[in-house]
Amino acid sequence: MALKNKKSQNFSEWYTEITGENGAKLVDMRYGVQGFVPHRTWSVQIIRRFEALLEQQVEKDGYSPILLPLLIPEENIKKEKEHVEFAPELFWVERMGKTKLETPLYLRPTGESQIYPLYSLWIRSWKDLPWKNYQSRITTYRGESTTRPFLRGREFIFFETHAVFETNEEVLKQVEKDMQITSEIITGELGLPFLYFKRPSWDKFAGADDTYGADCLMPDGKVSQIASTHDLGQRFAKAYNVKFIDQNEKSQFGYQTCFGPGIWRIMAAIIGVHGDDFGLVLPFKIAPIQIVIVPIVFEKNDKAVDRKCKELEKKLSKQYRVKYDNSDNKPGWKYNEWEMLGVPVRIEVGPKEVKAKKITIVRRDIRKRETIAEKQLERKIKSYESVILKSISENAEKFLRENIKEANTFEHLVKILNTNKGLVKTKFCALDKSGEKCADKIQQATDGGKVRGMLFDDKSRASGKCVVCSKKATATVYIAKSY
Amino acid sequence: MALKNKKSQNFSEWYTEITGENGAKLVDMRYGVQGFVPHRTWSVQIIRRFEALLEQQVEKDGYSPILLPLLIPEENIKKEKEHVEFAPELFWVERMGKTKLETPLYLRPTGESQIYPLYSLWIRSWKDLPWKNYQSRITTYRGESTTRPFLRGREFIFFETHAVFETNEEVLKQVEKDMQITSEIITGELGLPFLYFKRPSWDKFAGADDTYGADCLMPDGKVSQIASTHDLGQRFAKAYNVKFIDQNEKSQFGYQTCFGPGIWRIMAAIIGVHGDDFGLVLPFKIAPIQIVIVPIVFEKNDKAVDRKCKELEKKLSKQYRVKYDNSDNKPGWKYNEWEMLGVPVRIEVGPKEVKAKKITIVRRDIRKRETIAEKQLERKIKSYESVILKSISENAEKFLRENIKEANTFEHLVKILNTNKGLVKTKFCALDKSGEKCADKIQQATDGGKVRGMLFDDKSRASGKCVVCSKKATATVYIAKSY
Repeated sequence: MALKNKKSQNFSEWYTEITGENGAKLVDMRYGVQGFVPHRTWSVQIIRRFEALLEQQVEKDGYSPILLPLLIPEENIKKEKEHVEFAPELFWVERMGKTKLETPLYLRPTGESQIYPLYSLWIRSWKDLPWKNYQSRITTYRGESTTRPFLRGREFIFFETHAVFETNEEVLKQVEKDMQITSEIITGELGLPFLYFKRPSWDKFAGADDTYGADCLMPDGKVSQIASTHDLGQRFAKAYNVKFIDQNEKSQFGYQTCFGPGIWRIMAAIIGVHGDDFGLVLPFKIAPIQIVIVPIVFEKNDKAVDRKCKELEKKLSKQYRVKYDNSDNKPGWKYNEWEMLGVPVRIEVGPKEVKAKKITIVRRDIRKRETIAEKQLERKIKSYESVILKSISENAEKFLRENIKEANTFEHLVKILNTNKGLVKTKFCALDKSGEKCADKIQQATDGGKVRGMLFDDKSRASGKCVVCSKKATATVYIAKSY
Repeated sequence: MALKNKKSQNFSEWYTEITGENGAKLVDMRYGVQGFVPHRTWSVQIIRRFEALLEQQVEKDGYSPILLPLLIPEENIKKEKEHVEFAPELFWVERMGKTKLETPLYLRPTGESQIYPLYSLWIRSWKDLPWKNYQSRITTYRGESTTRPFLRGREFIFFETHAVFETNEEVLKQVEKDMQITSEIITGELGLPFLYFKRPSWDKFAGADDTYGADCLMPDGKVSQIASTHDLGQRFAKAYNVKFIDQNEKSQFGYQTCFGPGIWRIMAAIIGVHGDDFGLVLPFKIAPIQIVIVPIVFEKNDKAVDRKCKELEKKLSKQYRVKYDNSDNKPGWKYNEWEMLGVPVRIEVGPKEVKAKKITIVRRDIRKRETIAEKQLERKIKSYESVILKSISENAEKFLRENIKEANTFEHLVKILNTNKGLVKTKFCALDKSGEKCADKIQQATDGGKVRGMLFDDKSRASGKCVVCSKKATATVYIAKSY
């Protein structure tokens, strides 16, 4: 009931262990179909809670939920000439029982190719705009070659918003709003900092004019995209005929954008960034159990302790998700188990505490034990709600900050990426097609280092020269290996 | 913006109209793949609310959520020899991009064949029991030949619980509990009465020992199964090796049960049972918008009215989901629209009302207008919460009661089923295999009348003779045509 692998020594093995049977039992890898992962209850309970936060947030921003079919007719994918890039990765349904279907159907890889033909039917006039729908708690499908739970799957949990506007300016405002939503939930509630990039043109979503992505730094120094927004311009509108009658009674194509917080990736970051050698460390707000009460009994039936535990359970349950663990396992075993599962607060009650009207309380994140007067308990827990979030946020923030280095020469850049963790900030010639060769050079010299883009809110003009080709730099970019 | 069809004259046409473009825009039938239906936002918002009520209720009963893959390897379906009945209805995935998969995979038709192999891995000892997981907000797939939105689909929204017990007695208690859950939510919160039957043996779920089903009566006189529970005995446990070590350290097969409230069917009943010629009538608790405020303005910008509406919106929003419809449509148009969508309460505010500190308030269910003092508004709405539910429940209850007739002869039975709506109560020889021939005779003579079973809580011994074969009756059964 303890992890064999240390997070600091071998993150990859630690990650596999903590997600599986000997860890927090988040998934079961014995299902037998590559990239299709059964989610056990603890992960589902965590994920549902932050999905709900995201649902609330996008609804506040004017999105309303829809639910579209899993299967999409073949013709749909062919309509947008860049989006068809998805085709080699699609799963196909061609048979029902023994009957061959007339049209091959593919499992949705993402929503564009099915949502926009419907938008074409639903949207009539400028009065209908902005049109904003979203889907959540759905799954999508892509034929990835390598797969890992919560990082890359052939099936993965999906959340997508799709908006249509009258102008491109509104799209850009929405991109900014999406960054705020990401920040409010993923950083503000889950304690995960990120950098928000405008991606290079060669790293855009298939069919988008521009892609913006939120990168989170994982403990092994690789970045993981935990959310993205695409400025689709009018390309999809033209492909799927998404038109509206404008205020001058003219027919116009809409400007579109879509946003996807990566539900799996966020879960991977919660596990990886906050977890430690003892197990998960869950943010208070989304922990399925927020407080566990463990009785310390020396005689088999210590009624005073049991009574006190039940009293606390009843009192705290009014505000929190509480578990009174009165199973017949030993206290030490219980400590390990609930630490593995990441329960933020543990309360220990023994005969001594009952007599002295005291409580021992343990914070999961720093594993610090404190004995306090019982009457202070509720105030203490109240304070922990924000204290724990602040503490894990600061750690994550510090790790990210400390692992951004600057490089002024190609050699320096390569050296950092090959020996250090994290991101390298440097000058770069161009994020349009003309810069792709320089990006390729970096990637080859560093075993996969990728230009993640320039910061979304970087309004400065870059000076100096490209670290690769020495041409005039047009952007300050960040380079990192990635998931 | 009004329905062309009358519910009382042509239910089927009325149903199609109200679910579609000219009605409450619940679905869009123009997607182009039979049985795969895009859900527009109004239906998703309604469905999510009662799904959440069901989630809360099953979690209170000890179930915890899991999320399993959509795709299941071919070998799994073959393991239970009756369950394999699903095979002709399965959708198959055999190709990823251009690559043929090694194992054909089928889209889940229901959870048993994938959940129980995992239960076999997860359950170890009697201490793990009862084991209770559920899945919600997922979709399942069956190759049905005829399809209708919310009634029968090739893709439909699913909710399933799966429990493992030490004994069959516990299974039977769970069956009763499932009936209670169904009753508390579907009747108690949504105002839909049902009869709970033990199904005849020839109408069981493939592989179950017994099936229990909740039948709701639709306005056309056909019953619709809106929930079912299966007593799986040890059959699936044996097929999928679901074992536990009992208190005597012996290995035993578990006793299993699964329960499924039919999310689509419940939605169909909300539409069909409560709806009227003006549109949907939504139960207050699950209405996406509970109160709509419509300003009655004669001058273009009546600031006093606007101010009052905003004030009410702000005040009521603290407790309710409120929409202030200040669009530039005419009041009459707005009345029609919100009535079509089933919003339970409408508030009308004109200059006269503002001056007199009065409010006009309209109940959707009975479409009755009342003018009250403004200060009474909140108390009035509070009372409406229960009054509306009571009123629509009583109507539905009355319709069900009035459409249960008794028959003592085969001729009478046939006559009722061929001329009246609803259910016929009668004496029947046997619900085991030996009664199937009599059931077939009824079905042939009545264009589809089916023996729905005996009431779950019917503890009486049946007397008299079977209405078909005149053998000694063993059960009082109900017969009806069904969806």
